Amino acid sequence: MNPRPAPEPCIAVIFGASGDLARRRLLPALHNLQTDGLIPDSTAIVGTSRTGYTSEDWKADMRAAVEEHSRIPPTDESWATVAKDVHYVAGDVTDEGFFPELGELLEKIDAENGTNGNRLWYLATIPELFHLVAERLGKSGLSKTGGRQRIVVEKPFGKDLRSARALNQALATNFDEDEIYRIDHYLGKETVQNLLVFRFANAIFEPIWNRRYVDNVQITVAEDSGIGERGSFYERVGALRDVAQNHLLQLLSLIAMEPPIAWEPDDIRTEKVQVLRAVRRWSTRECNEVTVRGQYEGYREEANVDPESDTETFVAMTLFIDNWRWADVPFYLRTGKQLPAKVTEIAIQFKHVPHLLFARTAVEELEPNVLVIRIQPDEGVSLTFGVKVPGPEIEVRTVDMEFDYETDFGSGSPEAYERLLLECMLGDAMLFTRADEIEEAWEIVDPIREAWGEGKPAGYEPGTWGPKAAEELLLRAGHRWRDPA
Amino acid sequence: MNPRPAPEPCIAVIFGASGDLARRRLLPALHNLQTDGLIPDSTAIVGTSRTGYTSEDWKADMRAAVEEHSRIPPTDESWATVAKDVHYVAGDVTDEGFFPELGELLEKIDAENGTNGNRLWYLATIPELFHLVAERLGKSGLSKTGGRQRIVVEKPFGKDLRSARALNQALATNFDEDEIYRIDHYLGKETVQNLLVFRFANAIFEPIWNRRYVDNVQITVAEDSGIGERGSFYERVGALRDVAQNHLLQLLSLIAMEPPIAWEPDDIRTEKVQVLRAVRRWSTRECNEVTVRGQYEGYREEANVDPESDTETFVAMTLFIDNWRWADVPFYLRTGKQLPAKVTEIAIQFKHVPHLLFARTAVEELEPNVLVIRIQPDEGVSLTFGVKVPGPEIEVRTVDMEFDYETDFGSGSPEAYERLLLECMLGDAMLFTRADEIEEAWEIVDPIREAWGEGKPAGYEPGTWGPKAAEELLLRAGHRWRDPA
Repeated sequence: MNPRPAPEPCIAVIFGASGDLARRRLLPALHNLQTDGLIPDSTAIVGTSRTGYTSEDWKADMRAAVEEHSRIPPTDESWATVAKDVHYVAGDVTDEGFFPELGELLEKIDAENGTNGNRLWYLATIPELFHLVAERLGKSGLSKTGGRQRIVVEKPFGKDLRSARALNQALATNFDEDEIYRIDHYLGKETVQNLLVFRFANAIFEPIWNRRYVDNVQITVAEDSGIGERGSFYERVGALRDVAQNHLLQLLSLIAMEPPIAWEPDDIRTEKVQVLRAVRRWSTRECNEVTVRGQYEGYREEANVDPESDTETFVAMTLFIDNWRWADVPFYLRTGKQLPAKVTEIAIQFKHVPHLLFARTAVEELEPNVLVIRIQPDEGVSLTFGVKVPGPEIEVRTVDMEFDYETDFGSGSPEAYERLLLECMLGDAMLFTRADEIEEAWEIVDPIREAWGEGKPAGYEPGTWGPKAAEELLLRAGHRWRDPA
Repeated sequence: MNPRPAPEPCIAVIFGASGDLARRRLLPALHNLQTDGLIPDSTAIVGTSRTGYTSEDWKADMRAAVEEHSRIPPTDESWATVAKDVHYVAGDVTDEGFFPELGELLEKIDAENGTNGNRLWYLATIPELFHLVAERLGKSGLSKTGGRQRIVVEKPFGKDLRSARALNQALATNFDEDEIYRIDHYLGKETVQNLLVFRFANAIFEPIWNRRYVDNVQITVAEDSGIGERGSFYERVGALRDVAQNHLLQLLSLIAMEPPIAWEPDDIRTEKVQVLRAVRRWSTRECNEVTVRGQYEGYREEANVDPESDTETFVAMTLFIDNWRWADVPFYLRTGKQLPAKVTEIAIQFKHVPHLLFARTAVEELEPNVLVIRIQPDEGVSLTFGVKVPGPEIEVRTVDMEFDYETDFGSGSPEAYERLLLECMLGDAMLFTRADEIEEAWEIVDPIREAWGEGKPAGYEPGTWGPKAAEELLLRAGHRWRDPA
């Protein structure tokens, strides 16, 4: 192993610093990265938002947030190491005077901390401001310090292809593509990266990873809770844009991609884009046949939800990847709220054996092999296969081989945001979405939303796997959803 | 499931009834088959040997044997059900007058039990008598009753090709091939049968079960004890004839065979023979290069062992199967006494990935996948594969997925001999060795023994994996034995 070098010290500037993301994810992650010694002690954090905190207010608030949310509980010492370089600037990004003021503070920190003009701009504001902040950073000259520039853009990245393109353009005008880090926090999870290692560090899976042996692939991202307090956000977004466009399509492209030439960000992202490009585009009529949208009963009574809302809280769809490897293999994707379990998994369902040897005694059809890659909870891999039931009859029963990540490696893996912030500081964009990936994903998703038009989502009872139509979608093709619960 | 019909009632005639096999295996197995209701209550057992027991003596002795050795402890009731049809005839099979006398008893039982001339002749005598008993059964007319005839021949089946052929001929003169049941008790073990189910009930293994993906195959049958009281037997036989010629080559043919057309005895045995026929025959010089024979230190001091004995207690060999599936894939076989563990396993070692993606960060070579099928103890299947170690480095570690037979199905599988006796009574020869299989196996083994000639086995310390040369055998080909302990 050649350990990777530590990142150079930089200033992480968080726009939207009074929001939930800073409290729950970013400050805990920055605290843990310093505590684990993965980033320099001289790393500085500057929070900014319209809220009129002083630096001391914000620090106190952030310490409480780290206490509450961090994987590693802060000690007086660990927090002091972080807090000595924490600053807050109240201000309005729509105000032109704000950026020069911010710039002055940053230069002062550069001088004190030796951060050398290195910046990590973190856009954690409402999405409507991403565009503006990127432009102002460019116009004000703050993005041209001579140091390393990185801008991190939270999701949602646009609400359709047009808005995503506009945002990509605004970013591209003011930053180089290799300075832009589009977040999909699923990519920071260990098992997602393990997925690539699993596929390409083991010689036995790749030979059967294709249309000759795979019958269908099922990707599930399920939540067992409702939308909670997020009604006004969720009303504007829905399950298709909130999860399908990003997490589901990310998992699809990782599971289906060709082997990359090398373990380099652009080699991998290029292959991921190739998968999305090969996803068959459905006509309006087809969209309505191969997708199901649902809304859980009681959604319209949630806080900040339109009592006549048609926003979907569930979506299922069939996709095909029209290339040599996957032609005619259905990929079934589903996501939803108020489902029976909180679980993310990919199930590769293999074909039946070509010739049933045991027909004489075993009348029941043999269950085909299934390889399940669980992303959460209980990250791991399982493989079902048929064995002989002991005794003089040739009876075959399906059993499981299991590997559980926590059993072998213990718990306490770094959080996704720790990993993502570190990668960004290291300048490695492998775990971030490239402009063309985002745009291809919207190209897949936009026609579906348009096809739905004025139609209504089907209701489903909380605690079930969505509307009946989701089952029927697979039954029509002779398939059944695996029960991941 | 169509359950198989119960066998017709028959008389099991055990030649060599005062010996160890009857006590330890046959009577316990017959008791358990009746207790489990798998064979009719009217099944009769006739023991015979030169020992001058009365029927009552032998019954008492056999009850004690069942108490001591049976998987299911006998109750007064269960034993009574068996014992009511147990008989003993003292006599000498070399005496021509013996067989007519035996015949009279059998006819009497036929009349009482409705066994209809159905016979199961079990040759559990010393091997030197197999030939004679088969001939006398024929000549005396006992093998022509009009009922179902079956003759079970214990191992060793000959001591070389010539003697095996002679025995096959003697059997064939007096019985049809489908009446002859050559025992290799390994074939009665659940996991050996599971091996075929595993291969042919799962679509994902067959595609990688060939020279393109398999690097080498290792078959180990290890004992952690010495020869105990069996010195005089072992001196005449040695590890090559005792285990390699039968168990090791059986496992080889099951793991390497082509998919049979159907789950029928001759379809399966035909494919097994095809494997043995394709095993490359080594020249005398090659035999000495690709085999290793060893003798554990202290063997010459065991009871009834020649103090200058050259009998091998360990053998290792490299075989190649010259067909399309396996060309150039080495099959490494080893067996021995006084090894570190009592274990039987087959390890399929797969090739390396064709292209090492992670070269940039993971300097250590990736370990290739290994699929291990354990036959005993702890029957099961395990698969090693590489996963990512949590953290920001791309470090790959090898982990295991395991399936354990007992965990899923509980303990208490029928003993091999229960299964084998039942199959024999059902007239299903799938788990028995066909004449041509036996002869092919001797054709593989004979040249090795001849090549060894006057040479000496290499010594090895008890509790080690045999002589150093066994390690070197694999090292020369760039391989290493897996440690099954």
